[in-house]
Amino acid sequence: MTDLLLREDLGPVARLTLNAPTSLNALSDAMLGTLTEAFARLATDSSIRVVILRGAGKAFCAGHDLKEMQAARAAPDKGAAYFADLFTRCGAMMQAIPALPQPVIAEVHGIATAAGCQLVASCDLAVAAAGTRFGVNGVNIGLFCSTPMVALSRNVPAKVAFEMLTTGEFIDAERAREVGLVNRVVQQGDLEQESLRLAQTIAAKLGAAVKIGKRAFYDQLPLPLAEAYAHTAAVMAENMLWRDTQEGIQAFLEKRPPDWQV
Amino acid sequence: MTDLLLREDLGPVARLTLNAPTSLNALSDAMLGTLTEAFARLATDSSIRVVILRGAGKAFCAGHDLKEMQAARAAPDKGAAYFADLFTRCGAMMQAIPALPQPVIAEVHGIATAAGCQLVASCDLAVAAAGTRFGVNGVNIGLFCSTPMVALSRNVPAKVAFEMLTTGEFIDAERAREVGLVNRVVQQGDLEQESLRLAQTIAAKLGAAVKIGKRAFYDQLPLPLAEAYAHTAAVMAENMLWRDTQEGIQAFLEKRPPDWQV
Amino acid sequence: MTDLLLREDLGPVARLTLNAPTSLNALSDAMLGTLTEAFARLATDSSIRVVILRGAGKAFCAGHDLKEMQAARAAPDKGAAYFADLFTRCGAMMQAIPALPQPVIAEVHGIATAAGCQLVASCDLAVAAAGTRFGVNGVNIGLFCSTPMVALSRNVPAKVAFEMLTTGEFIDAERAREVGLVNRVVQQGDLEQESLRLAQTIAAKLGAAVKIGKRAFYDQLPLPLAEAYAHTAAVMAENMLWRDTQEGIQAFLEKRPPDWQV
Repeated sequence: MTDLLLREDLGPVARLTLNAPTSLNALSDAMLGTLTEAFARLATDSSIRVVILRGAGKAFCAGHDLKEMQAARAAPDKGAAYFADLFTRCGAMMQAIPALPQPVIAEVHGIATAAGCQLVASCDLAVAAAGTRFGVNGVNIGLFCSTPMVALSRNVPAKVAFEMLTTGEFIDAERAREVGLVNRVVQQGDLEQESLRLAQTIAAKLGAAVKIGKRAFYDQLPLPLAEAYAHTAAVMAENMLWRDTQEGIQAFLEKRPPDWQV
Repeated sequence: MTDLLLREDLGPVARLTLNAPTSLNALSDAMLGTLTEAFARLATDSSIRVVILRGAGKAFCAGHDLKEMQAARAAPDKGAAYFADLFTRCGAMMQAIPALPQPVIAEVHGIATAAGCQLVASCDLAVAAAGTRFGVNGVNIGLFCSTPMVALSRNVPAKVAFEMLTTGEFIDAERAREVGLVNRVVQQGDLEQESLRLAQTIAAKLGAAVKIGKRAFYDQLPLPLAEAYAHTAAVMAENMLWRDTQEGIQAFLEKRPPDWQV
Repeated sequence: MTDLLLREDLGPVARLTLNAPTSLNALSDAMLGTLTEAFARLATDSSIRVVILRGAGKAFCAGHDLKEMQAARAAPDKGAAYFADLFTRCGAMMQAIPALPQPVIAEVHGIATAAGCQLVASCDLAVAAAGTRFGVNGVNIGLFCSTPMVALSRNVPAKVAFEMLTTGEFIDAERAREVGLVNRVVQQGDLEQESLRLAQTIAAKLGAAVKIGKRAFYDQLPLPLAEAYAHTAAVMAENMLWRDTQEGIQAFLEKRPPDWQV
């Protein structure tokens, strides 16, 4: 039996690979459960500083497992309880990404559609191969991508999100970068290298600073300006009191590398 | 007497044409009233799936009717009550667009200024002819575009909106697309065709899915992340229980066109 | 003794120049205090309609004064009270910019890093010299740019802000314009001229309209749509009742320059 989700630790970088290529890495119940568990383990794994999330085979992720969803209609309630639970579980998995202490980089190739596009939007950062197509195309089969749009509409301008959601049409990687859905676009042959380089760049920073910063980023984002400043001023004052921050600043002033203990 | 607003139904697409070309389709009291009524009728018109809004003559819309506004100063209160009512009525008309069940596409050419630019920003989607100029230039005559900026600043980055509002300068269609104010830019000669094609693309989807999706889009946009997910998870679970969605998914799995009843 | 902050009044435009070039215009306690005072004076200076903020020497501003911060560790509390106060004072200075009645234009060259980048993001408008580099690179020395991200994340898409914050990498002026951090990019030799031209364009408008508009801009930005419209409708109705607005509209209708009294 093959693992649905592969994890490789490359030093401080954990690389997760969705490994159900025959279903284009569909977010089945099993895949959702496995991902949720993996994130829960990473949340307390102090050896890992950055996470990469990618897909095996031809695509990053094509969204939900439609066969499994159709099968759930056999229940006496025609699947009502299952569907409510499914979208709640899926949303919880997506929300676990910004809640993780470590930055999560989506390494995207092939296609990222529906909940697969939501997965890209939910990650903190995204690197895409040229030629990747992004879509929230559930509308094509009568199932509007209502949960994917939560993440998408927090990444891209309103009219761009609305067009993708109602037309079901794809955008390419270059347009995805232009509108804010991905950070970097590279050739397919350079994709693994580029996302790893980005991960290693972040992993080389003071881990505690990245951790406190990521949390503060999402905490302050929805706040009114004055509250956002009050919150982050306290975060920075705390950050200043760490031994390694003192050393980092001193090393910078003395033009030498920092001697960090963690 | 000529109708201020023309409506043509092209199958499931209603095309509204602002028809006061000599005033550059100014949003006079009569025009605001006519538009408001047209939207109210469309809201309950189940034969219409998409709305196109465009302008007759040289321009999409140049904003309020300044002559009518100046005339209102003759009142004993110097127009105070009229102006308060005018901006309230205008804002209500603008808000009726995202509240409509059907997506609304602005088909823009010539100029879209002040409340005319607000009208573009208020639509769910916008297609513009190359060469169209967009501006919120009330500041040039001493009347800051305060209500237009509500819609504009929810479409484009803050500094872009601020520059347009305080300089009164135009941006062209290409820049409008870059910053998120319009979705597509085509040659003037292709404009009617392109907006119709976009409308027909959306009209060919399952209408109920587009309707529930549009409402959920605007409902979730201002919510905190967890609330947005809770809301949209319920929307998707409901969407899954429809007969036509069951059929749409099954047809996709069987690689055949869906047999939708609506 | 040299002034830390220079002020020149060019007619209705006040140009402030951060004048600590040997520290790359670091936001020392003295500089923060001087800036705060300058803004407080401008807030009640009715002769000034637009403010330009720039830096002397090689850079716009490189952020906090790290030597001064390290020195504060000598206190019995290791600087805890000082740091809390510092970030509160700095945040208050940043928030004074959108609160000023006059638009503030950042005229940026060289580098704008950490709190220097925050200063650009906090200004209403920004003009940059080609070649300027923008970064929130505190993470490189173990001090995450948590307060700068408040302003940055309200200017640029979430993933762009997150990448800058966690990698510490710079973006150039052209990318800064693309993502919404600056409005205009010109050659270094044209920078002073371009920001002055932008300032004079705005200064030529009716000052009261720009003032009421700037306040309304930031007031409405965080509000739900209906509240934003209710607020700005009242603002526009008030604006309409001014003598100079009546004259501005009438002059426009009569195709002549307005005869404004202020």
